[in-house]
Amino acid sequence: MKINMSYGSGGIQTSNLIHDIFLKNFDNKVLNKLEDSAVLQVKEKIAYTTDSFVVTPLFFNGGDIGKLAVCGTVNDLTMMGAIPRYLTAGFIIEEGTELDTIDRIAHSMALAAKEAKVKIVAGDTKVIEGNSGVYINTSGIGEIAQNGVSISNCHKGDVILLSGNLGEHHAAIMSNRMGIQNSINSDCAPLISILDNLIKQQIKVRFMRDVTRGGLATVLNEIVSGSSCGVKIDETSIPVSNEVKGFCDILGLDPLYMANEGKMIAVVPQNQAEKALAAIRNSKYGKNAAIIGRITEGNNVTMITALKGNRTIDILYGEGLPRIC
Amino acid sequence: MKINMSYGSGGIQTSNLIHDIFLKNFDNKVLNKLEDSAVLQVKEKIAYTTDSFVVTPLFFNGGDIGKLAVCGTVNDLTMMGAIPRYLTAGFIIEEGTELDTIDRIAHSMALAAKEAKVKIVAGDTKVIEGNSGVYINTSGIGEIAQNGVSISNCHKGDVILLSGNLGEHHAAIMSNRMGIQNSINSDCAPLISILDNLIKQQIKVRFMRDVTRGGLATVLNEIVSGSSCGVKIDETSIPVSNEVKGFCDILGLDPLYMANEGKMIAVVPQNQAEKALAAIRNSKYGKNAAIIGRITEGNNVTMITALKGNRTIDILYGEGLPRIC
Repeated sequence: MKINMSYGSGGIQTSNLIHDIFLKNFDNKVLNKLEDSAVLQVKEKIAYTTDSFVVTPLFFNGGDIGKLAVCGTVNDLTMMGAIPRYLTAGFIIEEGTELDTIDRIAHSMALAAKEAKVKIVAGDTKVIEGNSGVYINTSGIGEIAQNGVSISNCHKGDVILLSGNLGEHHAAIMSNRMGIQNSINSDCAPLISILDNLIKQQIKVRFMRDVTRGGLATVLNEIVSGSSCGVKIDETSIPVSNEVKGFCDILGLDPLYMANEGKMIAVVPQNQAEKALAAIRNSKYGKNAAIIGRITEGNNVTMITALKGNRTIDILYGEGLPRIC
Repeated sequence: MKINMSYGSGGIQTSNLIHDIFLKNFDNKVLNKLEDSAVLQVKEKIAYTTDSFVVTPLFFNGGDIGKLAVCGTVNDLTMMGAIPRYLTAGFIIEEGTELDTIDRIAHSMALAAKEAKVKIVAGDTKVIEGNSGVYINTSGIGEIAQNGVSISNCHKGDVILLSGNLGEHHAAIMSNRMGIQNSINSDCAPLISILDNLIKQQIKVRFMRDVTRGGLATVLNEIVSGSSCGVKIDETSIPVSNEVKGFCDILGLDPLYMANEGKMIAVVPQNQAEKALAAIRNSKYGKNAAIIGRITEGNNVTMITALKGNRTIDILYGEGLPRIC
């Protein structure tokens, strides 16, 4: 069975799609009411964000657009020191998409939401002309558990930690598109357990950000523009798996500019760096974490290369890989 | 200047788009921080919703996709008895779209947000292949001001009010697509002043819903399935402007199934019906409000026609008009 325009009309087919796929997979008592809005009790200080997902292919090694759509928004909340609680999901579906494809995506979202301990409490579906593409927007609400996490808090001397290997999402998507057989999986994952462990270890986190499109290079440049400090990193300290390294060597890619979907940086005071590193390494998705550099004076990002040279790392110019998340 | 794929890369072009268009138009101190999430103080009981907008054409008589995207979500919050406070905006932009088009849409969103007294506090932009289409998702948070508004509260004997003339959004979009010159404007509007007035007059609103795609017929059928009651309406009481009536006569359309973007129904106890009618008529977008029927026993929607017959009103089957909101 394929989606046609009547599934977006607001009438009986829309209602069937909601019941047969979305309520079946997302089942919870708030969503099931099908009111115009979810009514929720929350703590008074919340984080609130949105992200849209347009990745092709819809299914790839290590994940799919549904898992991405949940993890991406969950991670944006987590990075502000918030425990993610509630998500909304807006689907824009092109005509011709198999209902079974939507069901698989919704099932994957439900699994990711369960792992991240969030509920999908409101949704919307529209159908557009096209050729079986699917676009998903998620928004999310989290309750602030760690106050004062902000890019403007980065101070000279603070230490920058990276939670694991770079480039896996980017390499997995490229491999799928190019038909290359390898064992590289997208790193797509919810990063809440890292925040949990940092809180448990009473780390005063200055700033966190997930490293997604634009790559590590772009995030580090965002620190420079958001904090009026410089950044210095050490190339040899940046974790990249041998398989991704090989993939980059063959295709001429730079891991610093590759997209990730389950990696983050944390900026912490120098005297808590080792404790923070242990906390992250002790988390489900942090075992390859490393200290990669520090906040400095200055107004740019520099990297000490493997050959002990200094390289200025700019923000991503141009396209990167399109439709990657 | 046209949007190309690099505007969705997360790099410098994305950053320029955010600064030159979105921050310029949506300017507020939360959004301006450009963190991964907005951090907000809210009351503990909130309404939370999402909606995506895919209308063609992007600009039409009486509105545009930006105004729709703000009003649609604001109204979904309002219908749960909530005062809308914060919105997110997710843009999916097809390659080839003029930057100026995005600027006009963002400007329109800013004006609608100002009227509705909401702030756009988080956003996201993705670029996809295509032909100058623009899709917008908004999510919204409101603070509950009127408790217990729910479809399940509709009781036998309650009175159903409609806030004004049906079919104007639908007729405006069709006129634009068909190149018909007339003075029909979309009714696209935020309905908060109606909620404000109902609260001021201490009306115990059982249920409210905005009447959008699927039309009045679909909303009334939703009452039947959500409340286990029947609905009876009187055709002669349903307000439709003469111009829309003429438009419908020529094209064979039924106003009951036509989409609206600034109309709502309210279900109130019988003894408050006249007071509620006055409150709605006294609101900015409610001057043509009418009592159109009541909640009954039974399990369907029936209408006493102008000729005093009884007609069963089903939910919308099939397409209606695609891409209307």
